[in-house]
Parts: sequence; structure tokens; C-alpha cells
Amino acid sequence: MTEQMYHIALASRPEGAPEPANFRHEPKALPTPGEGEVLVRVHYMSLDPYMRGRMDDAKSYAAPVPIGGTMEAGGVGEVIASNDPKFKPGDFAFGMFGWASHGCLPGKMLRRVDPAQAPLTTSLGVLGMPGFTGWYGLMQHGRPQRGETLVVAAATGPVGSMVGQVAKALGLRAVGIAGGAEKCAMAVDKFGFDACLDHRAYDSASDLRKALADQCPNGIDIYFENVGGRVLAAVLPLMNPHGRIPICGMIAWYNAGGLGSGAQVAEPSAPALWRNILVRFLSVNGFIISNHWNRFPDFLAEIAPKVAAGEIAYAEDVAEGLENAPAAFMSMLKGGNTGKQIVKLV
Amino acid sequence: MTEQMYHIALASRPEGAPEPANFRHEPKALPTPGEGEVLVRVHYMSLDPYMRGRMDDAKSYAAPVPIGGTMEAGGVGEVIASNDPKFKPGDFAFGMFGWASHGCLPGKMLRRVDPAQAPLTTSLGVLGMPGFTGWYGLMQHGRPQRGETLVVAAATGPVGSMVGQVAKALGLRAVGIAGGAEKCAMAVDKFGFDACLDHRAYDSASDLRKALADQCPNGIDIYFENVGGRVLAAVLPLMNPHGRIPICGMIAWYNAGGLGSGAQVAEPSAPALWRNILVRFLSVNGFIISNHWNRFPDFLAEIAPKVAAGEIAYAEDVAEGLENAPAAFMSMLKGGNTGKQIVKLV
Repeated sequence: MTEQMYHIALASRPEGAPEPANFRHEPKALPTPGEGEVLVRVHYMSLDPYMRGRMDDAKSYAAPVPIGGTMEAGGVGEVIASNDPKFKPGDFAFGMFGWASHGCLPGKMLRRVDPAQAPLTTSLGVLGMPGFTGWYGLMQHGRPQRGETLVVAAATGPVGSMVGQVAKALGLRAVGIAGGAEKCAMAVDKFGFDACLDHRAYDSASDLRKALADQCPNGIDIYFENVGGRVLAAVLPLMNPHGRIPICGMIAWYNAGGLGSGAQVAEPSAPALWRNILVRFLSVNGFIISNHWNRFPDFLAEIAPKVAAGEIAYAEDVAEGLENAPAAFMSMLKGGNTGKQIVKLV
Repeated sequence: MTEQMYHIALASRPEGAPEPANFRHEPKALPTPGEGEVLVRVHYMSLDPYMRGRMDDAKSYAAPVPIGGTMEAGGVGEVIASNDPKFKPGDFAFGMFGWASHGCLPGKMLRRVDPAQAPLTTSLGVLGMPGFTGWYGLMQHGRPQRGETLVVAAATGPVGSMVGQVAKALGLRAVGIAGGAEKCAMAVDKFGFDACLDHRAYDSASDLRKALADQCPNGIDIYFENVGGRVLAAVLPLMNPHGRIPICGMIAWYNAGGLGSGAQVAEPSAPALWRNILVRFLSVNGFIISNHWNRFPDFLAEIAPKVAAGEIAYAEDVAEGLENAPAAFMSMLKGGNTGKQIVKLV
């Protein structure tokens, strides 16, 4: 009898926010590793906002997940069979195994993870793609300077918390935005933000802007963009001349009907966006971290020791069981998680 | 009896497109130059799209023209009195004299112009602020590479024609957009664009995009932005990964009701704009040339000999008489000019 594994397939494309019916938890045959391939039993998988984009059939930097295909995700787990001499059973590795109990990939597409150096879960968050995204975007496109002011939303998330902590270490004022009083307290107490505003406490972009203005008396030099929408509308008029906006995501707009030119979003308007870039001499740079893995060793060399020393904090939110991944993902898109969203499979 | 001059004052702020009643042509006393000041009789003044922005009472990189104040403009003319030893009567100089027959400014705010080197009018266009804007924006933020494809609108204007000619000289494919068949022919025949599309010939951004796609078989690497609106919507989906968008203006949106967040513009939407910047890894940079006059000597050193040698062409559209400046300006905002819009005063 063929051994089985489980995966979560994309059953249908969502219209707006994903629903349970868009996902299908099902068994499939456990693959046998081919030449150079490694079979891994996934212990933890990552849930990230970018996965919402892969569910749409829109041109992007990555192909959409096909209907019936396995939802995309990074995961970390134990090697159980290997045809690559660099990996042996019992080793641990990170790879894009998908929303799945097991993954079979060429060894050259895996990254070795040492569970003695740091908990396995950190390879999905603070020392993985999200942490790297925050560090790279801030350093490369944010061009932080001591004394400047930075704003980032989802401040307790794995990207925002990295951005804030790196900015603070470089001598910037860091103001976070998060959903709810609990997360705001965590941003200040755990991650060292100078202040954190609860976006749910403001009825309009205008009210949020006034509160931000109070917390950013010298204006905003860097807005690390991961949400779009009302936060962007609030931030724009406060940007200083020659400000920088690295864009790594726009979670507030991921469910906006495929984001074609007809998407209805009240604010900011496109002319207001463009005008602010012009009259404030802003530098706006979109980036996707998968183009920049060559810098990952630099990131690890700088940040891993700080995590080990407790100088960089992190928060994780762990759901249990592959079958619960869709619910955790849908909740995360609404801000229901606190810290890096992970699913524990073993 | 006090000697008189004439100027055009901002009578009221426009709602949308400027109207004749927004301007007032009136006499005022001719100033007497103070210490270090120079009095100039303006021969030619410049009309530029940015002046529309100065008519609004919105926060920008420059203060708005006050009601009753002289409309802002650069001009070139003859020194008729001077308290600066660097200028003597009979010299010619460029300065921000406004929409006015005469101007009185500190000598250090003037730039000497030699009418033996090039016609006076070139100091307002091809060898002045607009030409410099095109050259600087392309070189600094466009980062052109041989073999790439560039798109610029207002292709026969003083900015667009400079951008196209510099791009061609660097080995890029240059595709222009202009209003009307005559301008399109001029873009190709006079300025050497590989192709030029008449935006009036397309009913929608989608149709314009298809025509652009035909002319840009390898996609678009640089979109030099000076119009916004439908052209931007057409260009965005054709941008190549790591494309660059220098923004020096957005004339299509200048009359959009002050461009606040409530401005109604059908396309592109803000989420579509932001999403394209993200998924195509675009670099978008707003700039205003007045921050970069330190580079003007480099520009002149490179471009003035090419203009003298006929290697860089230019077109001028000259209106006669200060009193006709408002009509020429209103026409220019609708694309009624062909080439750099100038007003001849003497």
C-alpha cells in the first residue's frame, strides 16, 4: 500500500476574503525522492499574507496556485529520506513544502536549519523570510539615518517588529500601528517602539493622521509599507521631503477584488498618492524578498546573534494541525494573530 | 511721475481648469533696485504646467501664489539698472521675474545668459528648466541602460523631447505619447522617437495599453511621468520588473479639484498603482528640479554643445504680449501648444 501524506489544496479562487470552501484538506500519495531530492516531514509551516495573492489568477511576481494545487508555504521539518549527500535522515531543513505534512524537493532548494542554534520556529519568522523582509527593506530602500522617524504597521508582526527593532537600534524614533490595545502595548513593551497607535481606535484616516502627527513631531522619514489603505492615507501628508517608502505588501488591499483598476477604495486616491510622491520628493520602492536571497547570509550574520542574545525579541502565534491552517490563515488576514503565524504539524 | 510696469496677478483661485477671471492684467510701480539688486526688462517669459499648482492653496514644495500676487514664472531679459557689480545695463539674465514686464531681484538670484551663444528663448526651454528637468530626471532616477525601452508623454514638449532625445542617444528605444497626429509626426520626424502614439485616438486606457504594447515589444523599463491619469493607467501593466518611474509632474491631474483624497479619478486606482509598484519591483521617485540646480552646469556642459550642433532639436510656441499670457497658459494646460510655450514681451 502506498504511504500517504496530507495537503491543503486550493479548491476555488476567493472573491474578496477567502472562505473555508476555497480550501480542501485531502490525502495524497507520499512521494518517493528522485535523484538529488530530499523528503521532509514538516514540523512547522508558515502562514504569511503574501499567500492571499497567490490565490488570485492575476499577473504577479509569482505564478498563481493552480486550482487543485497545493497552497504555497515555507516550512521546516526533519529529513526522512534523502538522495542528496548534503542531507541525511534526522537533519532539519527549511523549504517551500507548501501547506502539507510532507515535502519532497531537490536538496539544493533546501536550507539547513540547526535546532541547537535556535528554536525551529524562528526559521519561519524572526530568522526567516519575514524577518529578512523587514531588515532588507529597511536597510536597502528605507536608508535609515539616526534621528529620523519611522512608521510601520502590523508592528507586532514578524516584519513590523523586525523593522521597529532595527530602526531603534540605529537611533531612529519608531512609531508602530497595530490592531487593538493589547498589540499596541506589546509593540512598546516587548519590541521597544516609542509609541504604537491602535488603528481601530480611529474612525477615519484623518483622525489617525492627527494621532500620528502627535507621535511624529518631526514628521515621518520612512514609512515601511505593508498594509496600504487607510494607514497609507494617514501617513502620506506627514511624510517629510525626501522620505522613503519601501513597499513589501499591502494587506489592507489584498481582498480588494483582485485590485484591478476598477477596485473601489475610498482613500487615498491615486492622484493624492502620486501628488504626494511628487511634492515631497519621495522614493517609493516595491520589492519582493525572494529576489534577494543572496543577502540572506548577511542578515543571519547580523541578526541571529542578536536573537540568541535576546537583543531582538519575537512573538509567535502557533495553531495546531494542518487541517486548521485555513482558519488560522483567514484569521490572520483580519489581524486575528499576535506575532508570527505558524502551524504546528508534528 | 513714477514709472510703470505691468504684471498679471492671481485674481482668484481656480476650481478645476483656470478661467480668464482668475487672472488680472494690471499696472504697478516700477521698482527701484535696492542694494545688490538688478532691474531687468523681460523679453521672454516661460509658461509651464507647474504654475497650475501654484494657483492652489495646497501644501506643496512651494508656497502658493497669494491672491493679488504676481503669477510665478521664469523669464529672460535685459538688465536696465544694476546695483550688483556682476551685472551691467545691456547684459542679459534669466530669473524668476514672474508674469511681468519687469523684474527686480538680487543679482545672486540671476543667471547670466549670452545671446551670442544661443537664442534667448532657449534659456527658458531646451537649455533651461524644462530641458534640465528631462535630463536630470532621466539620468538620476531613470537610470537608462542601452537596449531598454522608455515611454514619455507630452513628447513634443520641452521636457518630453529632451527625455526622448537623450534616451535615443544612449541607445534606448523611445516611445512617445502626444495629443494629435501632427505632434506625433513631429515627435518621430524632429525628435527621433521610434514611435509616438496619439492618446486622443484611443477611447480607453485599455486601448491605449494595447497600442503601447505593440510599440514596446520588450515591455517598458522607464516611464518618465509628467501626466498621470489615463496614460499612467495604460503604462503600468506594461512595466518590466525593476522598472523606474521618475515623476516630475502630472498635468492630467492638475485640475482634479485640488487633488485631495476625495478627488474622483476613475483610473488607475490607488491599490492598482501600489500593487504594480510592489509586484513589478518598481522604483518611483518624485523630484522637483529646483532642488538640483547644483547639477545645472553639468547639464549645460553636456547639452548646450549638442543644441548648438543641431544634435538636440527643440520646438517653441511663442505667444505675443503679456496680456495674452493667461490665454496661452489655459491653452497649454489642454495641450494647445506645440513645443515649449513662451510669451514674447518685447
